Amino acid sequence: MRFTSQTSADGVTEQFFTLDEIPGVLWTPEGASGGRPLILLGHGGGQHKTAPGIVSRARRLAAAGFAVVAIDAPHHGDRPQDGEFGRIAAEMRAGMAAGENPGVLVAGMHGYLAAQAVADWQAVLTAVQRLGQVGAGPVGYCGMSMGCGLGIPLIAAEPRIHAAVLGLLGLHGLAQDAARITVPVQFLLQWDDQMVQRDQGLALFDALASSQKTLHANPGKHGDVPSFEVDGSLRFFTRHLS
Amino acid sequence: MRFTSQTSADGVTEQFFTLDEIPGVLWTPEGASGGRPLILLGHGGGQHKTAPGIVSRARRLAAAGFAVVAIDAPHHGDRPQDGEFGRIAAEMRAGMAAGENPGVLVAGMHGYLAAQAVADWQAVLTAVQRLGQVGAGPVGYCGMSMGCGLGIPLIAAEPRIHAAVLGLLGLHGLAQDAARITVPVQFLLQWDDQMVQRDQGLALFDALASSQKTLHANPGKHGDVPSFEVDGSLRFFTRHLS
Repeated sequence: MRFTSQTSADGVTEQFFTLDEIPGVLWTPEGASGGRPLILLGHGGGQHKTAPGIVSRARRLAAAGFAVVAIDAPHHGDRPQDGEFGRIAAEMRAGMAAGENPGVLVAGMHGYLAAQAVADWQAVLTAVQRLGQVGAGPVGYCGMSMGCGLGIPLIAAEPRIHAAVLGLLGLHGLAQDAARITVPVQFLLQWDDQMVQRDQGLALFDALASSQKTLHANPGKHGDVPSFEVDGSLRFFTRHLS
Repeated sequence: MRFTSQTSADGVTEQFFTLDEIPGVLWTPEGASGGRPLILLGHGGGQHKTAPGIVSRARRLAAAGFAVVAIDAPHHGDRPQDGEFGRIAAEMRAGMAAGENPGVLVAGMHGYLAAQAVADWQAVLTAVQRLGQVGAGPVGYCGMSMGCGLGIPLIAAEPRIHAAVLGLLGLHGLAQDAARITVPVQFLLQWDDQMVQRDQGLALFDALASSQKTLHANPGKHGDVPSFEVDGSLRFFTRHLS
């Protein structure tokens, strides 16, 4: 794990790093030492590790005492794209333009990325937990849309993750992994999501095997999650990881 | 409005009163003077103004600075029951025992009570807002199950109510009133509710005309709402009424 830059502002230290081929960012409270709960932030499709929604959420969580890490998903951000990914992405856009079911199309994309994304997160989790200001404490995962689609196979495979905030995605392609998830989940659904059919989103919430899970549904489209849900996620992680 | 008793404990003053034929309870912060937001608490079917869930929620809200009032619904608690109510209640119980749709049965009961319940709440609201320790500030309504079924016609009719926590009920009989509600709503739904069909609960949330509304769904039956939702309601009222 190689750190390439470090800055601090408003009580939060931001460190860019690379681990093998994976570029990432770690946020911790300024001057942090000793173990603390860690949140993994998975970004949305076409976004990257420093998308505005990721950075603002990360800084909010770090200011509350958490360590937070985001990485570029495979073929996203600062990572190279291969030809096969480009072909799948072009097919997905063409299918959406042609009126095909976006839930099925994004599930195909997520299926192409999932195995690599899970391996990346597991390597980053191991490396970050070796840092003195993080340690091997409780871990949460937060990801919407593609961050949910790659997070569900990760959480199903990874016993170190103890709570998750997920959402903005439907059941397509995720039934088996969702049924293996038993940790507490807060699940966000946009009632008028143009990308996710309402019944598919409700079906993904239903498929999670967690005995403690809460659905938060709000009016509006895919990108219109109300800002108070960021505070709701913080309270959820505080309740389950602190 | 005639106060019949007053006690204080843990920083909250509890006053029993009657207004004409309506028995009620007012909770305020101990020593409160001057105006403050007011919450109306509507109890569930077969319950009354001092059911444990009502009292604990009222004390939590009053400790946070709100004024809170609960009254016995028509034919509930300390109020007389007429023969017609007894007949409807017996028919409802018999229908449930016979496997009829509980959503339709409770809607019939709520329909019988609604006009009187709305008139009662409007009179109590006027009287309570004349008190120096309450005043004519913003008003919220909180009611689940029957408290939702009687609350929806009240909120539809009553412009003084500016925010509401509702839930544990389906759409039967409420579509027209729900479509007249435009204030912010937090709506609780139990995913495995034995009294409310899931699609009927989702349909009632959907029918509310409010641009700001949030559905909170949790696993479990009608009576299993997690305790953290009480704090969630407090935060919701604080956000919208303070």
